[in-house]
Amino acid sequence: MALVVKKFGGSSVATTEKILAVAQRILSEKKPDDKIVVVVSAMGDTTDNLITLAEGIDKEPYKASYLREMDMLLTTGEQISISLLAMAFQKLGQPAISLTGSMVGMKTDSVHTKGRILDINPARVFEELEKGNIVVVAGFQGADKLGDPVTLGRGGSDASAVALAGALKADECEIFTDVDGVYSADPRIVKNAHKMKEITYREMLEMARLGAGVMQPRSVEMGHYFHIPIHVRSTFNDKIGTVIREAYTLEDNYFEIRGVAHDPKVAKIAVLGVSNTPGIAYKIFSALADANISVDMIVQSIRNLEKNITDMVFTIDESDLAQAKKVIDKVAEEIDAASVLVEEDVAKVSIVGAGMVGNPGVASKMFGALSKAGVNIDIISTSEISVSCLIKGSQLVEAVNSIHDEFFKE
Amino acid sequence: MALVVKKFGGSSVATTEKILAVAQRILSEKKPDDKIVVVVSAMGDTTDNLITLAEGIDKEPYKASYLREMDMLLTTGEQISISLLAMAFQKLGQPAISLTGSMVGMKTDSVHTKGRILDINPARVFEELEKGNIVVVAGFQGADKLGDPVTLGRGGSDASAVALAGALKADECEIFTDVDGVYSADPRIVKNAHKMKEITYREMLEMARLGAGVMQPRSVEMGHYFHIPIHVRSTFNDKIGTVIREAYTLEDNYFEIRGVAHDPKVAKIAVLGVSNTPGIAYKIFSALADANISVDMIVQSIRNLEKNITDMVFTIDESDLAQAKKVIDKVAEEIDAASVLVEEDVAKVSIVGAGMVGNPGVASKMFGALSKAGVNIDIISTSEISVSCLIKGSQLVEAVNSIHDEFFKE
Repeated sequence: MALVVKKFGGSSVATTEKILAVAQRILSEKKPDDKIVVVVSAMGDTTDNLITLAEGIDKEPYKASYLREMDMLLTTGEQISISLLAMAFQKLGQPAISLTGSMVGMKTDSVHTKGRILDINPARVFEELEKGNIVVVAGFQGADKLGDPVTLGRGGSDASAVALAGALKADECEIFTDVDGVYSADPRIVKNAHKMKEITYREMLEMARLGAGVMQPRSVEMGHYFHIPIHVRSTFNDKIGTVIREAYTLEDNYFEIRGVAHDPKVAKIAVLGVSNTPGIAYKIFSALADANISVDMIVQSIRNLEKNITDMVFTIDESDLAQAKKVIDKVAEEIDAASVLVEEDVAKVSIVGAGMVGNPGVASKMFGALSKAGVNIDIISTSEISVSCLIKGSQLVEAVNSIHDEFFKE
Repeated sequence: MALVVKKFGGSSVATTEKILAVAQRILSEKKPDDKIVVVVSAMGDTTDNLITLAEGIDKEPYKASYLREMDMLLTTGEQISISLLAMAFQKLGQPAISLTGSMVGMKTDSVHTKGRILDINPARVFEELEKGNIVVVAGFQGADKLGDPVTLGRGGSDASAVALAGALKADECEIFTDVDGVYSADPRIVKNAHKMKEITYREMLEMARLGAGVMQPRSVEMGHYFHIPIHVRSTFNDKIGTVIREAYTLEDNYFEIRGVAHDPKVAKIAVLGVSNTPGIAYKIFSALADANISVDMIVQSIRNLEKNITDMVFTIDESDLAQAKKVIDKVAEEIDAASVLVEEDVAKVSIVGAGMVGNPGVASKMFGALSKAGVNIDIISTSEISVSCLIKGSQLVEAVNSIHDEFFKE
């Protein structure tokens, strides 16, 4: 017997046909004694349609004063999909019951549309499982201490599934998605990328941070916290996917690195010709922080030792570029910088793996692979379990492939 | 200061434009100190669209095993409209908050899709009113002791508004509808029908039972139970409508009768040539009761005293006719009746008024009016506050007008 939480996203339940197919698939894999909790998102376009309705009241429905009502509105999306999926199970002869976020005891703070999970009291879920029901739970939502519905924001559906699995002390949380697992590199770019059987929470977090889009960091953190293995697998086939867990269980799973991540959505800003006096870095980066802009890589390099002139180069998310440029132009004037340069054709390529700790050969192997591919390295940054290089955006595909070949060649 | 519950139906909130108009209208009538609770139904077609979705899972979504999930599904309809109406108030500068049936403490039994209200604990409503909010409440729904959503079935929106008004000890419950009050006869049929200023609960119940469609008996009973005046008025203008209450407050409001009701959806069945022995009536009517068919008027008349042969004539709702005919044909065979006749072109016309008690002149005045219009009376039945006549369906309009003229001529 196993207690498993299975999570299906909105595209998996976009129509009633697909909802019936999800029910069918779950039943085909269910062993007689299995206890199953299914967490689902709103059907396909439902959320967008609800937002369009709200725009009929006010073109800016995400104003602060509306957020509580937006949550009241948006939580209906999952309530629709859970009731239909429970009916689908019943039609197939399987007792099932749907429960909202509030009903599964998913307690959140009151930050509407961006709620955080505070606690889960899933007594009702246990009761319904005991009765022989498959329990269908609304993802992405909980309720605050007043009992008001609260949505969990970006990555909230996966996070609520993993957190619920934690509270239920489930054996595993399966996340069904449009890819069939976590790959050693993006398979759309690297032809011979391989699917990992396992990856640790820490490595997965680092992969996600460095651009791998499979899982939101939030749910991986949740899995780490609750020690729940997260099985990322495909909605469209029944192959085993990738299990994210504390530590590897499989001997044959060791490589020097786990994977190659990349992020093309990067921009570089260089503040050139700055006087190298105390407080200059603080001025630049506190101004960016005040504007809520995250800075990733930072390099400070001496240009003229005699005159004590330095250059300050850093990277940010491409989407923050316009705002960051404004902020930096203003600061540059204040600190009397020679000039500000912006470069958009940059990208970041990274290797990730717990195995590289204290193994300097790994980084140099990466640099060698880039050199072999004729790729110049602009900035290098490292963490305990990763090395990242900023390169020309137009060379990203060759770079990723060359590094992947170097580490995973047969 | 007044505490008023206002109820708007689905057609009043069918679009976001209409929702904004409802909010505007409520604010234009609101005095600064008024405390206002608005109960709304689902937007126009929402419920039908949700049922269509459920039919995508199973063509018969109202099977018993699905009913709990149907309630989970259908309660989203009002949850959408309340969130949008609360946003509309906020857009107009009025603090407002939406609450589901469960959140206003509307406790129901667990008879899904046909729930009955057991109790209301509106603590949250009082709290939100105290904060200066207009409270927007989902009609038609409550929650059972498990916290599962339950819809209230036919007439449930009005009933939940009136019950909530009762629990809040509101000064009045306003029901906004597509007519501007209760008329002395259906104004579509009787040109000079007048709008009543007031009517008692008992008279309104009798009018409703006898065919007047303005209010469902359920909410009138609820108003009677809680002693809440129900003000029936138009969504489309701000005229005073009709107040349903315990007893009249207005001197000029007395007539011999209150109004003329009619019901064209009646069918007559005659079981002819039955032996007049004990248990025959029981056999006929228990068979109908077992098939869940309500019988209205009943007449038993002796055809042949010598042979002790009798005829049994009764009326039922037209929609039950096909099923009733089957039941009666079977019983007729068992009791060896001579024949069964069915007549569909029949209708019922009634006068209603507490004033007629112990005033035999009122009934004869009605019969006189029918005679004057050349209408033959088939069956007569009376209650304490009404007299009803079964007549030919094709003569209904003349009959109603002639009776109305007789009692309300200037």
